[in-house]
Formats: sequence, structure tokens, C-alpha cells
Amino acid sequence: MTQSAQSIWTDIERIRAQAPLIHNITNFVVMNNTANALLALGASPAMVHAPEEVEDFVSISSALVVNIGTLDATFVAGMRLAMRQAKALGKPIVFDPVGVGATNFRNQVSEELLALAAPDVIRGNASEIMALAGLNAQTKGVDSLYGSEAAVDAARRLSALTGGVVVISGATDYIIQGEKTSIISNGHPLMTKVTGMGCTATALTGAFAAVNSDYFQAATHAMAVMGIAGELAVEKKPAPGSLQLNFLDALYELTEAAIADRLQLTYA
Amino acid sequence: MTQSAQSIWTDIERIRAQAPLIHNITNFVVMNNTANALLALGASPAMVHAPEEVEDFVSISSALVVNIGTLDATFVAGMRLAMRQAKALGKPIVFDPVGVGATNFRNQVSEELLALAAPDVIRGNASEIMALAGLNAQTKGVDSLYGSEAAVDAARRLSALTGGVVVISGATDYIIQGEKTSIISNGHPLMTKVTGMGCTATALTGAFAAVNSDYFQAATHAMAVMGIAGELAVEKKPAPGSLQLNFLDALYELTEAAIADRLQLTYA
Amino acid sequence: MTQSAQSIWTDIERIRAQAPLIHNITNFVVMNNTANALLALGASPAMVHAPEEVEDFVSISSALVVNIGTLDATFVAGMRLAMRQAKALGKPIVFDPVGVGATNFRNQVSEELLALAAPDVIRGNASEIMALAGLNAQTKGVDSLYGSEAAVDAARRLSALTGGVVVISGATDYIIQGEKTSIISNGHPLMTKVTGMGCTATALTGAFAAVNSDYFQAATHAMAVMGIAGELAVEKKPAPGSLQLNFLDALYELTEAAIADRLQLTYA
Repeated sequence: MTQSAQSIWTDIERIRAQAPLIHNITNFVVMNNTANALLALGASPAMVHAPEEVEDFVSISSALVVNIGTLDATFVAGMRLAMRQAKALGKPIVFDPVGVGATNFRNQVSEELLALAAPDVIRGNASEIMALAGLNAQTKGVDSLYGSEAAVDAARRLSALTGGVVVISGATDYIIQGEKTSIISNGHPLMTKVTGMGCTATALTGAFAAVNSDYFQAATHAMAVMGIAGELAVEKKPAPGSLQLNFLDALYELTEAAIADRLQLTYA
Repeated sequence: MTQSAQSIWTDIERIRAQAPLIHNITNFVVMNNTANALLALGASPAMVHAPEEVEDFVSISSALVVNIGTLDATFVAGMRLAMRQAKALGKPIVFDPVGVGATNFRNQVSEELLALAAPDVIRGNASEIMALAGLNAQTKGVDSLYGSEAAVDAARRLSALTGGVVVISGATDYIIQGEKTSIISNGHPLMTKVTGMGCTATALTGAFAAVNSDYFQAATHAMAVMGIAGELAVEKKPAPGSLQLNFLDALYELTEAAIADRLQLTYA
Repeated sequence: MTQSAQSIWTDIERIRAQAPLIHNITNFVVMNNTANALLALGASPAMVHAPEEVEDFVSISSALVVNIGTLDATFVAGMRLAMRQAKALGKPIVFDPVGVGATNFRNQVSEELLALAAPDVIRGNASEIMALAGLNAQTKGVDSLYGSEAAVDAARRLSALTGGVVVISGATDYIIQGEKTSIISNGHPLMTKVTGMGCTATALTGAFAAVNSDYFQAATHAMAVMGIAGELAVEKKPAPGSLQLNFLDALYELTEAAIADRLQLTYA
């Protein structure tokens, strides 16, 4: 077994043992899936967005996940307060800029939130990472028009700006912080036919960041687990309804051996 | 193979090839399901409701789907702007008046939206179509108290009013525009035991309308595909939890042969 | 067959025959699941939260279910109006204080709603029932830090305050009203790995309360059915993705014999 697989497994054991409370301010489409994915991994999820209570909730949580998939004014107000509070308390912030680049509203909100409280990890597809880095990227709604490798320079620029980790997910996942790069080649194309798999990756990153303060490692581990659980699920049945169910089962049943067997991680 | 089955298949191939971006302003209950159904069919769904961004998003989308299932003021504001923009840009609008007739609020909002931007396709159950046509129909919350045939006159009146297509879904689906009528007898009663199958039919209609500018055909094709995928799913296992999963798998795995074998389409 | 199993079955037959309309104001995470669980049981669910229409909707419904899982100002305004209307019309109110104790906002909203319209049934985990009873309980977000037996005194205090039934769910479920106590030992620990199973129990309680005006019995029956359907689902496959699907199938396929075989109900 490689050192990396052991290190991933150590984090999973910590998540299962500690069941860290992960505070999600996320979109309506994926709330159920990401809560179930966090539970299947061993974490304790909660979805709390009201400005009246997000600061209280951040205070008792181990990580904050912010996802702009179905933005509106109430949610944006909650995100502002929660991110500021997480920053003040030193809790990890994971940010998912769903659909940034598609509308001015998403661009403005993302820019404002990033300036308010630099996320410890940002995860997006190539279009989103390029748009967030200020490049004039093209998007197709919430889907990327580029392979993940096209956004590596943008990710590095964004990491320099925030000081945090930037993850570009796609057929190949790039995890970038400063000069460091890890590359995950796990996963399966059918995962793009299930809504919110990217959002799930972001949520799981929150769980790993809650137990591993090396956020570069935490993000790498989360992307590896996503990809491996996805592969296991597709092998059960290559169809999108089944994949959604089998992915949760695979996360729950994940073993150290499966990780060691399947992990496709390199450092560049 | 009938010409109709071929024509349905041509639309599916277009959807799979073009992956049209379908902009949904829909209800909280079904966002996940309808996004997954659109993905399984081959389209690219997005759920975007904020008044701050719906106009931008309509501009990059190929069809707009508006569903009033869990209305509130923010969503209504978004629907107004989005429908006006879609009308201005000539993008197809598909409207689902969930629960209209059950409350004055739903009646007023539906009436206002219809006056603002006549939908290209309206899909509802018999109670909803009758209520929307101004008849004093009885509803049971979001379920119909009538067979779909009871609403044929109402649908024709509504089609005359909007100039668009009106679909009454039920054990038999009627697709009506002006004097034209198509009738789909596919589907299975167990589909009523899964929440949001009607909303899914509406969303899929958006995908067909995005690739086929004959909206009467597009709506007919969408209802046929719903019914056939539902039958295939029920045959896998006649139980509602399984149906939800197997329906997505069936949509994804749909073949020209299955459509040709099963299609029950007549024109009246 | 015990009298209790017969009595549960009688309620299920009523639900299947009458398909009572259950009005839910609930959280975003579980709307789809709880709608599907109500459909699988035989009820007719609707999710309606807008202040503009909740009073109209309560008027046509057979029970009101209020769940504070993802509170915000709009939902709170809807809850107020709906609960007041249900009280005025004598319709059963079932209340789920998700995460009460975790934030001041949840505490204040819960306190206000309870004072406005005492619920006929309150269902929560031990932490929530203790917090709601004014005890200084510790919570972990939306999960309990106590076994259900720890909250029996709190439940009795809360029942004295509201005059209604109080359910503490957990490995063992306690259903308490005044001096009466029933205890359900059905269920499986894996159910805690699927989000919203507690919320589903609350929603099903609404369906039982719609057909059985003895709310102590109705709540007892709902908890028994939850536990039994959960056991049947886990036996199909002990993994959380599968559990969510198999639970809905089990609810739909539930038989009098399965209830009689498995029911673990005692009165204390």
C-alpha cells in the first residue's frame, strides 16, 4: 500500500470516529444528496442558511461549505455572515462557485465573498475556475466547456490570490496550492450524468478539511474518494439512477484495500 | 417502425448530440429529480431563480421551464423576469401550473404569468388545466380529481387563449393545439406514487422544445418518452422507490427499438 | 395478531382509502423524501410555504406538518399563519423542531410557534425534546447527543405544557402524552445514516393523525411503521443509498402480517 492510500484511510477513520459537524450553505438541487454523501462517509451534515442563525451554527461546526448553485438574496446574506464568522474562528471554508461566469450576479457574489473571506479550498470545473480567476472563460450554464487541464494556470493564479487550495475537477482532477500540484485520475464519465456530483465533491472536501488541517492533502483525499466511490458505483451498474444510489453505498462501504487498489494519484 | 417513433428518436438524438441548456425555475421538491431526468435524457439542466440573474440565464439557455409547485415572492419575481425575457428572445417557454385552483395565490400568479408571456406549452393534470382555463374545477392539493379526458374542452379553450400547446397528463395524455390532438396511452398508474413525475414530464418537454420548434410534436414526444420510460421502470420492479431510480436508468438507456415497440400514440 | 397490530393496519387502510391531503411546511433537504414516503404510505402530500397561500391550503388539508430544518424568515411567516389557521379549524398539527438548541433563532422560533398554536404532536430526538422543554441540552447540529430515554422527563413536561403528544425518537422511541407512554423498539441504527428519516417519521405522523383523531395512537402507529419499514429495508441491503430506496418500497408493500410479526410495542 502506498503512503498516500494510508493517509487517505487515516482521514476516513478520523471522519468516522469524530463525525465532524459540517455546516453547508448549498443549493436546493443537491441538499439531499450532499447530506447523504456526508453521512455515508461518516460526517454529520447540516444545511443552515438563515442570516439569523448562520453565525451561531458556524461556531459549533468543524467546517463550512458554501455553494452558490441556486443563489438568491437571502442565501447570499447568510453566506456573507457565515464566511466572515468561519474566518474569525479559523474554521476551514470550502467554496464551490457553481455556474460562475454564466451571469453577472454569480460573478459579483463570488468576487465579493472571496474578498470577504478567502476560502481554504475552492472546487470548480474548468470553466468556473477560469471565470473565477478573472479569465474570460465560456460556460454552458453549470457545465464546463473545457477539459480540467485548461484551467491549471487559472487555478494557480487563484491560489496565489487566496493563499488556499484550488481544485479543478473533471476527467482528471488537479489539486493546486502555490507550487504544489496533485493529480487524481480516478472517476468515470457517467458521473457527469448525475446532478450534483461536483457539489458532493465539495461537501466531502469539507469533511476531510475538518479532520486534516493540511488542506492540500484534505482536498486531494476528497477527490480521490469521490473518484474511487464513483468507479465502484459504475461497476455495479452503468446507469445514472443506479449510480446515485450505488455511490452512497460505495462511500459507506469503502475499505482501505479498495483505496489502495484503485488510487491513481500523482504529484506534478 | 412508425414515422412517429422515428420522429421521437430523431429528437432524442438531437438532445443527446446538442445537450441543450434547459433553464428551470421549478419547485424545491423536484429540483433534483428533474435535473437528473434531463441529464439522463441527454440535456444540460440548470436551476436558476434569482431575479438578479434569470434574464442573463435565459439568454444563454435553449428553453425555459417554469413550475409553480412551491411558489413564493422571490420565485414569482424571477418567473416574471425570465418569462418576459424568453418571450423577447423567442425561446420556448414551458409552464407547469402545479396546484392551480387550490389557492387564490396560485390562481393569481398563473393568470398574471400567462398574461405576461403566453407559454408555448402548458402541462398539467385535468384539475389544473380546468382551473387554468377559468373553469370552477375541484382540486385535491396538487392531485387531480378528474380523468384527463374531462379537461379536453378546457385545454382547447386554453390553447385558443395562449396560441400554444396544452398537455393534459393522466392515465391517458392529451396534447392539444388549436384543432390538433394527439393522445398518448403509455405510462403506468404507479407513476402517481412517485412525487414529481408530472414536473419531470414538464422538464423533459423543455428539452424536446429546445430541439424541435414544432412544439406540438415536441410535447407529444416528451409525453411518449415519459410513459415508455415509466413502463420500462415499473417492469423492473413495481414499487415506488425502485421506480424513481429505474426511471432515470430507463431514460438513459432508451433505444429506438423500445420506442417503436411500445409507442401508443394516436391522433384524434 | 395483537390488537395493536390490527389497529395500525386499520389506520393504514384508512390512509390508503382516503389518501388524506397532508400539508407540509418542511425543510429543503427532505421535501422529496417525505413527499415520496407519504405517497408510498397512501397519503397525498403537498409542500406549500408561502404566507400568501398557506391559510387557503390548510383549509383544504387533513393535517399540517411543520418542520424547522432549514428555517428562514419567509418560511417562519408561513408557519405562523398556517399553524394559527390549523388551530382555528381544528386540524391536527405535527411539529418537528429540527436542530432546536443549536441556535438562538431556532429556540426563539420554536418557542413562538408553540405559544401561538400548541402542536398535537411534537416529534424530535432526545436533544431536541430536552432543548424544547427548556432544559439546557447539548446538541450536535441536528443530531442528538443523548439516548432517547434521557428525554422522557422533558417530554412529559412538554406534553403537560402543550396538552399534546410528544415523541422522542431514537434507538427506542417513546411516545408520551400526560401519564401515557408507549415504547417502540423497531428500527435499525443504519437509518441514522440516511438524511431526513426523522423528518419522514414526522410527516408520516401527519398522515396517521389525519385518519385517527386519537393522536397518541396515531403517533405510536407512525413510529411503529417507520421502524418496521426501516427493518425491512435494511434486510434488503445494509447500506444507506439502498436503504433510502428500499424504505419507500417497504412502506408501499407493507402488509398486516409484516406488522404483526415485527411489532415491538409496549406500554409503560
